[in-house]
Amino acid sequence: MTHSIEGILQAVANKELSVDDALLALKKEPFTDLGYAKVDNHRAVRQGAAEVIYGAGKTFAQIRGICEAMLKDGQECILITRLNQECAQQLRGVINLEYHKDAKVGIVGKLPEPDGVGTIVVAAAGTSDLPVAEEAALTAEALGNKVDRLYDVGVAGIHRLLAHMDEVMTAQVIITVAGMEGALASVIGGMASCPVIAVPTSVGYGASFGGVAALLAMLNSCASGVSVVNIDNGFGAGFQAHLINHLKTLDREK
Amino acid sequence: MTHSIEGILQAVANKELSVDDALLALKKEPFTDLGYAKVDNHRAVRQGAAEVIYGAGKTFAQIRGICEAMLKDGQECILITRLNQECAQQLRGVINLEYHKDAKVGIVGKLPEPDGVGTIVVAAAGTSDLPVAEEAALTAEALGNKVDRLYDVGVAGIHRLLAHMDEVMTAQVIITVAGMEGALASVIGGMASCPVIAVPTSVGYGASFGGVAALLAMLNSCASGVSVVNIDNGFGAGFQAHLINHLKTLDREK
Amino acid sequence: MTHSIEGILQAVANKELSVDDALLALKKEPFTDLGYAKVDNHRAVRQGAAEVIYGAGKTFAQIRGICEAMLKDGQECILITRLNQECAQQLRGVINLEYHKDAKVGIVGKLPEPDGVGTIVVAAAGTSDLPVAEEAALTAEALGNKVDRLYDVGVAGIHRLLAHMDEVMTAQVIITVAGMEGALASVIGGMASCPVIAVPTSVGYGASFGGVAALLAMLNSCASGVSVVNIDNGFGAGFQAHLINHLKTLDREK
Amino acid sequence: MTHSIEGILQAVANKELSVDDALLALKKEPFTDLGYAKVDNHRAVRQGAAEVIYGAGKTFAQIRGICEAMLKDGQECILITRLNQECAQQLRGVINLEYHKDAKVGIVGKLPEPDGVGTIVVAAAGTSDLPVAEEAALTAEALGNKVDRLYDVGVAGIHRLLAHMDEVMTAQVIITVAGMEGALASVIGGMASCPVIAVPTSVGYGASFGGVAALLAMLNSCASGVSVVNIDNGFGAGFQAHLINHLKTLDREK
Amino acid sequence: MTHSIEGILQAVANKELSVDDALLALKKEPFTDLGYAKVDNHRAVRQGAAEVIYGAGKTFAQIRGICEAMLKDGQECILITRLNQECAQQLRGVINLEYHKDAKVGIVGKLPEPDGVGTIVVAAAGTSDLPVAEEAALTAEALGNKVDRLYDVGVAGIHRLLAHMDEVMTAQVIITVAGMEGALASVIGGMASCPVIAVPTSVGYGASFGGVAALLAMLNSCASGVSVVNIDNGFGAGFQAHLINHLKTLDREK
Amino acid sequence: MTHSIEGILQAVANKELSVDDALLALKKEPFTDLGYAKVDNHRAVRQGAAEVIYGAGKTFAQIRGICEAMLKDGQECILITRLNQECAQQLRGVINLEYHKDAKVGIVGKLPEPDGVGTIVVAAAGTSDLPVAEEAALTAEALGNKVDRLYDVGVAGIHRLLAHMDEVMTAQVIITVAGMEGALASVIGGMASCPVIAVPTSVGYGASFGGVAALLAMLNSCASGVSVVNIDNGFGAGFQAHLINHLKTLDREK
Amino acid sequence: MTHSIEGILQAVANKELSVDDALLALKKEPFTDLGYAKVDNHRAVRQGAAEVIYGAGKTFAQIRGICEAMLKDGQECILITRLNQECAQQLRGVINLEYHKDAKVGIVGKLPEPDGVGTIVVAAAGTSDLPVAEEAALTAEALGNKVDRLYDVGVAGIHRLLAHMDEVMTAQVIITVAGMEGALASVIGGMASCPVIAVPTSVGYGASFGGVAALLAMLNSCASGVSVVNIDNGFGAGFQAHLINHLKTLDREK
Amino acid sequence: MTHSIEGILQAVANKELSVDDALLALKKEPFTDLGYAKVDNHRAVRQGAAEVIYGAGKTFAQIRGICEAMLKDGQECILITRLNQECAQQLRGVINLEYHKDAKVGIVGKLPEPDGVGTIVVAAAGTSDLPVAEEAALTAEALGNKVDRLYDVGVAGIHRLLAHMDEVMTAQVIITVAGMEGALASVIGGMASCPVIAVPTSVGYGASFGGVAALLAMLNSCASGVSVVNIDNGFGAGFQAHLINHLKTLDREK
Repeated sequence: MTHSIEGILQAVANKELSVDDALLALKKEPFTDLGYAKVDNHRAVRQGAAEVIYGAGKTFAQIRGICEAMLKDGQECILITRLNQECAQQLRGVINLEYHKDAKVGIVGKLPEPDGVGTIVVAAAGTSDLPVAEEAALTAEALGNKVDRLYDVGVAGIHRLLAHMDEVMTAQVIITVAGMEGALASVIGGMASCPVIAVPTSVGYGASFGGVAALLAMLNSCASGVSVVNIDNGFGAGFQAHLINHLKTLDREK
Repeated sequence: MTHSIEGILQAVANKELSVDDALLALKKEPFTDLGYAKVDNHRAVRQGAAEVIYGAGKTFAQIRGICEAMLKDGQECILITRLNQECAQQLRGVINLEYHKDAKVGIVGKLPEPDGVGTIVVAAAGTSDLPVAEEAALTAEALGNKVDRLYDVGVAGIHRLLAHMDEVMTAQVIITVAGMEGALASVIGGMASCPVIAVPTSVGYGASFGGVAALLAMLNSCASGVSVVNIDNGFGAGFQAHLINHLKTLDREK
Repeated sequence: MTHSIEGILQAVANKELSVDDALLALKKEPFTDLGYAKVDNHRAVRQGAAEVIYGAGKTFAQIRGICEAMLKDGQECILITRLNQECAQQLRGVINLEYHKDAKVGIVGKLPEPDGVGTIVVAAAGTSDLPVAEEAALTAEALGNKVDRLYDVGVAGIHRLLAHMDEVMTAQVIITVAGMEGALASVIGGMASCPVIAVPTSVGYGASFGGVAALLAMLNSCASGVSVVNIDNGFGAGFQAHLINHLKTLDREK
Repeated sequence: MTHSIEGILQAVANKELSVDDALLALKKEPFTDLGYAKVDNHRAVRQGAAEVIYGAGKTFAQIRGICEAMLKDGQECILITRLNQECAQQLRGVINLEYHKDAKVGIVGKLPEPDGVGTIVVAAAGTSDLPVAEEAALTAEALGNKVDRLYDVGVAGIHRLLAHMDEVMTAQVIITVAGMEGALASVIGGMASCPVIAVPTSVGYGASFGGVAALLAMLNSCASGVSVVNIDNGFGAGFQAHLINHLKTLDREK
Repeated sequence: MTHSIEGILQAVANKELSVDDALLALKKEPFTDLGYAKVDNHRAVRQGAAEVIYGAGKTFAQIRGICEAMLKDGQECILITRLNQECAQQLRGVINLEYHKDAKVGIVGKLPEPDGVGTIVVAAAGTSDLPVAEEAALTAEALGNKVDRLYDVGVAGIHRLLAHMDEVMTAQVIITVAGMEGALASVIGGMASCPVIAVPTSVGYGASFGGVAALLAMLNSCASGVSVVNIDNGFGAGFQAHLINHLKTLDREK
Repeated sequence: MTHSIEGILQAVANKELSVDDALLALKKEPFTDLGYAKVDNHRAVRQGAAEVIYGAGKTFAQIRGICEAMLKDGQECILITRLNQECAQQLRGVINLEYHKDAKVGIVGKLPEPDGVGTIVVAAAGTSDLPVAEEAALTAEALGNKVDRLYDVGVAGIHRLLAHMDEVMTAQVIITVAGMEGALASVIGGMASCPVIAVPTSVGYGASFGGVAALLAMLNSCASGVSVVNIDNGFGAGFQAHLINHLKTLDREK
Repeated sequence: MTHSIEGILQAVANKELSVDDALLALKKEPFTDLGYAKVDNHRAVRQGAAEVIYGAGKTFAQIRGICEAMLKDGQECILITRLNQECAQQLRGVINLEYHKDAKVGIVGKLPEPDGVGTIVVAAAGTSDLPVAEEAALTAEALGNKVDRLYDVGVAGIHRLLAHMDEVMTAQVIITVAGMEGALASVIGGMASCPVIAVPTSVGYGASFGGVAALLAMLNSCASGVSVVNIDNGFGAGFQAHLINHLKTLDREK
Repeated sequence: MTHSIEGILQAVANKELSVDDALLALKKEPFTDLGYAKVDNHRAVRQGAAEVIYGAGKTFAQIRGICEAMLKDGQECILITRLNQECAQQLRGVINLEYHKDAKVGIVGKLPEPDGVGTIVVAAAGTSDLPVAEEAALTAEALGNKVDRLYDVGVAGIHRLLAHMDEVMTAQVIITVAGMEGALASVIGGMASCPVIAVPTSVGYGASFGGVAALLAMLNSCASGVSVVNIDNGFGAGFQAHLINHLKTLDREK
């Protein structure tokens, strides 16, 4: 209802609405019409980008219902995060779902064509970090970004990372995913000239405290240009990288 | 020495350098020539942007020395962060320094013309958060960005923030600066469609634990698109915002 | 035995009791008769309000026994918190129990008519916070309060909350329930003119540390008039809100 | 400007304002006129209650300025919290200030007549907790409440507390102030039938961790009806107690 | 081998042992003969007191083996702590075991006659604290102490505790067992004139952090004469109380 | 007023007091007369033992006042803990004070003759732990105990401790004082057959976290019979050791 | 490919490779040939030492595949750490595996002959620490070290440790493994003249916080010459001890 | 008295000492002669190595006294750590002291000739880490080791570290010193084939928590062969590196 405040004012001007009733209407729902329901606006601009469903704590019936409603609306791609395997199997019986077991991510429909400014690099330190890295990568892809995966580039074998300097140097945004001591963010942050989003993972044991060691390391990165999201929050990193990679698009529309 | 690996190889091809000497040369300094010394490259592209000096722990003599060397090199703007008042006063005796006491930031020379894609909004919750907010804002300005300051927009008086919805909706990047419960990041994160960088401050007492409460709140933001830097790290936020706001520039050069 | 100290003294005055025996009696049980066994007194005044059973760690047989004793005593409503589903099913076989699965709350008998001063608003940030919110709401209802539920009003979509400003402005007490960054308490605390009781929930992951992030945020709320109960303690919030909402009733009895 | 939305609408109805201009006006400042600037409304109702200035971080000049403006506006009582001694001395030179050194509280003008429903009891465990207790008590008094002080009633000498059972049993609200192990909140919470607001203090050493031990104890109180504010937050407790003690007043005005 | 150092020296004096061999002997086992193998000495004095087996992590076969060896040695009572139910059931098939399910304590043989100086009081705050309280009480009984149990005397109903003042005032040692806010230790510590050993339990949820809240409260007790053992360490408290209650016996032997 | 309850009852029996007045009297001060004001009773038994003043936060005038009142009452020894040097110097001008600078302990009058059962051993790991150890030792001496000091017996030079096995084996109670890793408590706990009270100190740096490392080590001691007091709480340990060492005395009086 | 940089340079010198292609080759894989792929080089020197596989998170198929490839390569001993029992059983069906259930370590092939400088002592405090101690010991043995096991030498029975002074005094490196209060590291660190590597274990309960108490104790050891690895990291300690014990071997090769 | 046990035994054999007196002698000082007073033995072997004095908390007079006693004994080099500037200045007045202000290290006499097996590399991340790095380096030098300093090789400029690969590859032991995110330990640990000792420093702010972030990162290093000492413990790292670098010397003496 993008017309509502304007509509109310027009109605008042037209004497179709009393000042008192207009006042009440504005008090009751003064905001639904102001257009800052971010997701909707944004999406209107870029057909094809996925809708997102946070699957954790939702039942098969709920997710199915939301998906079917979205598909009916013409949505071509839906991203479901934190989707457990059992629920995924049930969904596969009724809709066209591609399920990434480790990342616990489901994709309904086909991924959109990338329409971002550049490439998002997702760099992960070890194989145990892949589920979180994939959540980030698939999120970015579902939202319409080209993603380059650099996996198993942990700093204990620095040559593996250095061998990929080209990708690091030409990325638009880099997502670094690491558990344990989380040093990857600092090393890449020092090499790259683009923004780096660091995702600590809960990979580790003992004094890793479920990802706290990596989180603190990333917050204290000696490299400039690194910011951090919550432990294991691959989606959050993928989403912010997507925002950065699509800023130009917004710019063009002005 | 951007020519070095190539130069060494050329010298080998020209028989001016033996294989053994070339091997030694490559082993000793194999990287200075590879071009990923980020700052240098980057700066070459954008004349005018400030050099940065981290003032904490440096003596007046050291800072003076670095400044004079930079100025000799033709640097037109130098940003000095965490510069204490005593040192600033001494510097003012010998160079043209503008000192921002609360933010502990010194600016040598004049700020460059903004050449970023859009505007960086710096939103701060309370007056006690201003020193950190100003560090972020001055950093961004010194690096060539247009900055819009929204101060005293803490969530306990939500109308003050809502009154600035236009700025929030049209920003290229938003830096939210808040101590205590750090809720500002979530509220702005929910309103904006651009990336939000959250800076927790050490403002508060008791169970704020020197900024930990705000840090945790920001990491757990229910709004997508929010990432976080270290407590009181205004510079870090300003720097990353600058990178995001200049991505287009880099892009054009391809 | 509200007569006991007085009775003992009377008996001494009547020479029915020696000073020594009276002294012993007073030393042994000097307090049961002093009338500060809060719950009992309180309840005597307000027939209909529920008795409360903390179900955690109690067996089916124990809860059944307590319930049957209370019902025999004429109790018309019994609230059982932290009641697991298995135990609830067994209880349903023998007594008239309404079970709220998510909130783990059982209600025996029918809810009393609200007899408080005004309305208690229970505001919850997200759907995952509902079990705790419902524990608070059902507790308040079982103790004789009118409850208004505002669910899914998390601050990342501030317009949803603002649309309910009337309820917020006219409440007698507000209970805010939120996990993750717990910002809801501050925003509502800034809007409302009545006391706000904040309940952090263990909803979240990673650096939410089982509700600690929300707890700290609420303790550090920049809004005046907010106090906090333990993580997930919906009952505690409901109980205190009830006390506040019934202060007038107590007052009248003076 | 309590007339503004209504005024805008009226102007539109009167054709004095175009729909577009009205839309702009509403977008720009849609909230200042909606009446939820809590403090203002509230105060309008109760003449005499103090305005509050948070003194920490403010200079003598700033506080003087605010005070003089308020006094000019006809404010009869001003409460200044966290006011350091040096600043207080300067203020005393220019305005009529009563300074409570330990509590770091300044009172300008005279305290209003109490107009709350009942009495607020402030109970403090030890002499070291008095500064925080006094901040709470003076806050409540400045806002128009009758306050009863029970000091030095720590649980290690339980008879001292029990000797004051009457005050505890008849209070409208009780504020319990304690550092170290913070047990006072639980003992009073178990005795009282009114809401209890617990204030942990940073009194203690070693494993008291600056008030964390008391804070955790209070959050985990086995007594129902206890809620907690931040460490050393005497003002917050006094303010919420005031809200509770004035609910009836609000009620009457309906 | 209480004779060994003396024996070696005698053998050297008798020329039955060379200086070198004596030196080697002293180096190899210089300590077994020095008499500080506490348990053995101690036990020799007080026949009847139980041997203790820490059951956690031991298999049925291991515990059975140790028990049978002890019984063969004439041991009349064996205390097995942290004994799981499955293992207890197997043991009951082969030896005379009394199993206390909640406390996870097994007693083989019959409890010794109490031979301590006075009575050990075990006071527990709530019913959930009973397993730990029973571990303490049974430990003390198995080591030959008279134990008085005061259960469900939590401070939220202070009258229940005050009704037992006689027991508190005449105890030789008091063990206080409490979870949540752990206030019981301070209240009893203030009432009693004997040493108080406090046992925090992991009872609670949310910000009780598995017993940390109670632990900190007890360490910060405002009452003198309180010391603390590890969370849930009923055995440790029972053992130290036993040492205190048997000091006199040691004294007599001098 | 040890006669009060009895006196009230007698007065009722004698018709000198009405039942109502007696009831009121009992409600108002029901406890001062019940005899559990521990310190007073206790002291009455043992003339000579010191009164204790906690000096922290008290002014010279306050301490002087309390001392003079006590001396007038015939008190022969007064122990003042946490007494700062400046205050001590002022006191020395007016009363007979012996000041122990490192321990921040002042002794007024002369130490009483030891009248405990046995000897209290105070063992300290390093020279930096001496202030806390001396606070414990002086407390015990002032309360009438024989104290044996074993200083500089840290476990990194285990032979120094083993050389004092006799003292350890014959003590009535042992107080172990250690910072850093706090291992002394476990080693002594394993050697001794008497109760061990462990005092963690804030000695150390980095990951000692102000005594937390030592505190945790002591709480987790693998030796039975060890209990713990707060960090740096020498007084608490000395006081509890005193209680244990005087149990026999109390016993005899029965 | 130890020849590669040299080979590339030679090819350039021989005009077999253009400067551009050489530059590309160096940029792409500049490091695999530089010789710091530590493990490979190292192993080449010492035939027989085991390869290591970190078993956690790897499937039976993956581990089998890696093993078979290694065996084909002529590897005579393979160490598999963190290998769960189920996976071990499957492996035993197809390759010659010796499985150490408690340590979760599998050894394929036969252990190499020890070729280190001296003996590595592995000292463990209690029986619950054995799994970690064995992981350390087996790691060291599989890498070619002589290992001496001193188990059950916890400091609460210091004589057991002192009886092994010879082993402690003559070791090349000592690994101390302890949970709970972790005091073993300090006592051994004080006795030994060789480097001590301390491994905290997660053995304990309550305030041991999963090994944090032991970790802090070890980091704060008052003995010089002690360094620490992560909680339960037996492999890490065994590996570093091996490096120290083989330094001489490396030295000889120079 | 290295002759004592042997001497006592000899005296017994010679009938110069009775068995009882010998027994007493052995009980009183049974250990000073057993040879595990590590430092003394060790030092006897290697003349020239420095004695160490921990200067923190010692007065000028104490340090002077110890130094003069040592010098009289023929000690040629004394290392004083944590020596404050004021005390150093006083010492310089009376003995030949070289003072390193940043490291707070004093050297009396001249450094010994290096006599270790190889070189100890001390690598530091940033200039703020130099005081701790220098404490480590000077400690190692004073104990007779050749030290190679690699300063300012933080991972944010990885090329600076890679340029020193030769030093890293040929070191006998490496000490890595870093604050903030502490990533240097992992990167060097991955490159080197020798033991790496990591020293976290308290350099940083906000969420570095005084060195905790770096400490956790180092404990969780993904590189094998890394162990860790306490925050800012340069001495500890230097001492252990020295032990490792001198193992061969000990070996030769066998």
